[in-house]
Amino acid sequence: MPQTGNRLLADVSLPAAVIHEPALAHNLTWMQRFADAHGARLAPHGKTTMAPALFQRQLDAGAWGITLATAPQCRAAFAHGVMRLLMANQLVGEANMAIIADLVEAGADIYCVVDSAENVGQLGRYFAARGLRLKVLIELGVEGGRCGCRDQDEVMALGELVDSEQSLVLAGLEGYEGVVYGDDPVQAVRAYAWHLVEAAQALDHDGLIESPAPLITASGSAWYDLIAKVLQEARLGAHFVPVLRPGCYVVHDHGIYREAQRDVLGRRPELDRGLKPALEVFAQVVSLPEPGLAIVGLGKRDIAHDQLPEPLRRYREGGEAERVLPVDGWRVTRLMDQHAFVALPRDEELVAFNGRVRVGDIIAFGASHPCLTFDKWRRLCRVNEALAVEEVIATCF
Amino acid sequence: MPQTGNRLLADVSLPAAVIHEPALAHNLTWMQRFADAHGARLAPHGKTTMAPALFQRQLDAGAWGITLATAPQCRAAFAHGVMRLLMANQLVGEANMAIIADLVEAGADIYCVVDSAENVGQLGRYFAARGLRLKVLIELGVEGGRCGCRDQDEVMALGELVDSEQSLVLAGLEGYEGVVYGDDPVQAVRAYAWHLVEAAQALDHDGLIESPAPLITASGSAWYDLIAKVLQEARLGAHFVPVLRPGCYVVHDHGIYREAQRDVLGRRPELDRGLKPALEVFAQVVSLPEPGLAIVGLGKRDIAHDQLPEPLRRYREGGEAERVLPVDGWRVTRLMDQHAFVALPRDEELVAFNGRVRVGDIIAFGASHPCLTFDKWRRLCRVNEALAVEEVIATCF
Repeated sequence: MPQTGNRLLADVSLPAAVIHEPALAHNLTWMQRFADAHGARLAPHGKTTMAPALFQRQLDAGAWGITLATAPQCRAAFAHGVMRLLMANQLVGEANMAIIADLVEAGADIYCVVDSAENVGQLGRYFAARGLRLKVLIELGVEGGRCGCRDQDEVMALGELVDSEQSLVLAGLEGYEGVVYGDDPVQAVRAYAWHLVEAAQALDHDGLIESPAPLITASGSAWYDLIAKVLQEARLGAHFVPVLRPGCYVVHDHGIYREAQRDVLGRRPELDRGLKPALEVFAQVVSLPEPGLAIVGLGKRDIAHDQLPEPLRRYREGGEAERVLPVDGWRVTRLMDQHAFVALPRDEELVAFNGRVRVGDIIAFGASHPCLTFDKWRRLCRVNEALAVEEVIATCF
Repeated sequence: MPQTGNRLLADVSLPAAVIHEPALAHNLTWMQRFADAHGARLAPHGKTTMAPALFQRQLDAGAWGITLATAPQCRAAFAHGVMRLLMANQLVGEANMAIIADLVEAGADIYCVVDSAENVGQLGRYFAARGLRLKVLIELGVEGGRCGCRDQDEVMALGELVDSEQSLVLAGLEGYEGVVYGDDPVQAVRAYAWHLVEAAQALDHDGLIESPAPLITASGSAWYDLIAKVLQEARLGAHFVPVLRPGCYVVHDHGIYREAQRDVLGRRPELDRGLKPALEVFAQVVSLPEPGLAIVGLGKRDIAHDQLPEPLRRYREGGEAERVLPVDGWRVTRLMDQHAFVALPRDEELVAFNGRVRVGDIIAFGASHPCLTFDKWRRLCRVNEALAVEEVIATCF
């Protein structure tokens, strides 16, 4: 983090996680416009970043609320001023219920998810004892998926049960298409989205939804275009509030979501260029012990490691942002807790093209899955195009 | 973390990381005795836990100092009262040098590692400009390994160079056997340990070591017995201070280090029963959506995931610690950010033996590689045998 100055390439202890402002600003606007164009509200998944400063940027850009995954995450977001919270997960355990009940008492507009009679009973008793009412969404899943009722019959039976609990308010339907698979995944996700629509309409038809503005909500960061389109085509807008919940879009990535976004743009060529990767980790070469090998001070403690990170660019320590050196042919071969093994090309032309590598050279790395990079850091550096640190962004994992 | 009471099974928001005091206390004593019995000092690797309360327990048990991997880690340990710090890593980048220089000025007894002429020059210039002297150890590595000089000639040449820098004090030799491989790994590690001894003696013979009590240090958490034995057999004690640096021993694990410890005890049957796993993550069943499937509120955000975690025991929420329910045949099949998929046995006898599973049941999970569980948590619960929380232990990653 900044010591005496704000130059990422000179004043900041590396490794450091870096968010590029131009790409961040672009992504914030891009996804909000996408939701607006589909008549949907945006409740970005906050678990991706757990960074209140980014929640505020998302709300300022027009987000309807923030989605979260756990009770402590909701508490942290509320403590930083987020008033509308969608906990897209089951609320289980009295210690977690106590956290959410405290937020309800403090005035939070909060929604949780239910998918079992057992949990409905637990919540009903707990919130009745506290003299509070909790808004819940029923989760519709799929056979072989994660949580959620497996079909509409289960949804309706659970709706009756929620209706019978005085302390629970049925406020709509929730789903997550990221665990829906099939030989034709696009068709499988579309079919699932239509099942969500039908189940929501059935609950509504039977008078089981108590909330005057019920939610219908789904979508992670890979298939949001399909969910948005079905919810738009279903013309639920008059009665339901369609809510999209992508999270990773805010900084995008250099891995699975870059792939997913290519598919989105393939399906929707009319969409503008799309999201830009905004999150990188900068680290330094610490040793050049053998020809063809650089050891970099970057490890599993610093960056997502479901896939090996990708060297993107190189700078001299103390250099200027525009003096970019190439890393052509560089490849991470192994990641330990605090070190990356980087294989350097041995081809003479490429070695000459890349220029001499020095101990201290700074490498920008990209990774797949931003959630698992954010959770490595208590503070990230938001930088401008000149790689000057404009803000130190805190996380609250 | 504790809400109104201190009962892990009733009052604590789950998932939570848990350290069992009896196993922790056992491990602290066990490893200190091991080092003492070999005439070595113990500088436990602090990067494993980054928990100052555990550093203090290690120092109270007799540790000579704390090993760390980065300049910010050294700063954090020193801020919590650790006065002797072994940074078993190269010190690269002026922002990192500034952190270490500040610690030297503040009175820390600190050692860093060098393995290249380039870095020796950088450090020499920086510390000269600050008017300070830095104690460095030369790293000896192996061909195909990580950092470090590749042979004794390189070590000697670097020793001459350090000697020529007025601001650097050569204080010994450092190695890490965890990246040494061979058809016979035991022989390869032993041979490497003897190379360390020979290189240290050669530096000493040539009068290149300036420190009056130079260090010879190696050992991670898998081969510490081999290193300790060679350093003992070499009888360096009169002049050198042998320092062992295992880190994971303090809480041990349910994976790679359990395997490694079996090998240690196989090689050294006279050693008493050995280390005990002390670190677990407790999480709750959030959904039972299909026969044979439990979804648990435990994800990559909560536990090391190089290997899938292992269900160990089960409790009812609000129950007593001694009322342990079985998890025979339970198996984690997939881990997402915040959810684990657990396959439950379908065999009727086993289902009957395990008893009915409920939403809210609490599962204790073990994992491989404690470093990558600790870094998921800002606070861990240290519990007694009754699973009452005795201390909330903060980390400073």
